[in-house]
Amino acid sequence: MRVFGIDCGTEYTGWGVVEVDDSGNRQRLVPIAAGAIKLNKKDKTPERLQQVYVDLTGLMLAYEAGIVAIEDVFFAANAKSALKLGQVRGVAMLAAASCGLHVAEYAPLSIKSAVVGYGLAAKEQVQFMVARLLDLEKAPEPADAADALAIAICHIHTAQTLLLQGGR
Amino acid sequence: MRVFGIDCGTEYTGWGVVEVDDSGNRQRLVPIAAGAIKLNKKDKTPERLQQVYVDLTGLMLAYEAGIVAIEDVFFAANAKSALKLGQVRGVAMLAAASCGLHVAEYAPLSIKSAVVGYGLAAKEQVQFMVARLLDLEKAPEPADAADALAIAICHIHTAQTLLLQGGR
Repeated sequence: MRVFGIDCGTEYTGWGVVEVDDSGNRQRLVPIAAGAIKLNKKDKTPERLQQVYVDLTGLMLAYEAGIVAIEDVFFAANAKSALKLGQVRGVAMLAAASCGLHVAEYAPLSIKSAVVGYGLAAKEQVQFMVARLLDLEKAPEPADAADALAIAICHIHTAQTLLLQGGR
Repeated sequence: MRVFGIDCGTEYTGWGVVEVDDSGNRQRLVPIAAGAIKLNKKDKTPERLQQVYVDLTGLMLAYEAGIVAIEDVFFAANAKSALKLGQVRGVAMLAAASCGLHVAEYAPLSIKSAVVGYGLAAKEQVQFMVARLLDLEKAPEPADAADALAIAICHIHTAQTLLLQGGR
């Protein structure tokens, strides 16, 4: 299973690909790639959204993603910033649909719980645990890339739990 | 000039095409087509957004739109509804960019002022004036289609005013 995590943002949109390796004695999380799409503030909104769409679809295809995991946002500083974030999130979900990929949504609390084991963990704790779980010397930068990996890890953990529950 | 107006919504997304006819003694607004994309509540969000994207790009190309006009939203009932509206709005702007069309944004106050002459006009007044300005027996339905035509008319009026100011 290769999961493509997306951390939407109006300045940076992080992305990260994680695979589950079942070949050894113990299941292992393998980091495939991660990065962030930086949007040019000088560009107009439609051009920025087009960049997010083109980059994300290209990355999903290039890394042969099997499923997309995205953060479910329930709150925002205000309605205006929620609208702007929604625009990016809409385009990210459209990119997944265009690639024929299913989208799994996770609440911020679930993501932190899955990665740190504590729903109210600080941003730095999430980054530290992402590096540890993926056996990396340090967390990928920018932080948006690490957050996207955390979302992918959350999906893998959740999918495994559901599988175990189904197998009872 | 053929303007493609969009009224974004999470249930219905209205669209309307208006052209300016300069052939007669007096400039005339010609309604070309209008309608609304109804989203299926049973579909998941990515599929709904894909429907908006596919339908809008198809309509923009079919009606040979020259420019896209969209409502600029500054407020919403709450952050959650703003995020959902933003998702549709982002996909609508992406559709325009994919068709190589420029997007002009207008505040609700400007749209009402352009159509009714009064920024705080009621929804019914806008619909009444849309029908009158386009020489239609009654306002197109659903209301989202009429609102999209109002946005297109607003762009035409604004563009003409800018043209007159530039020609001084």
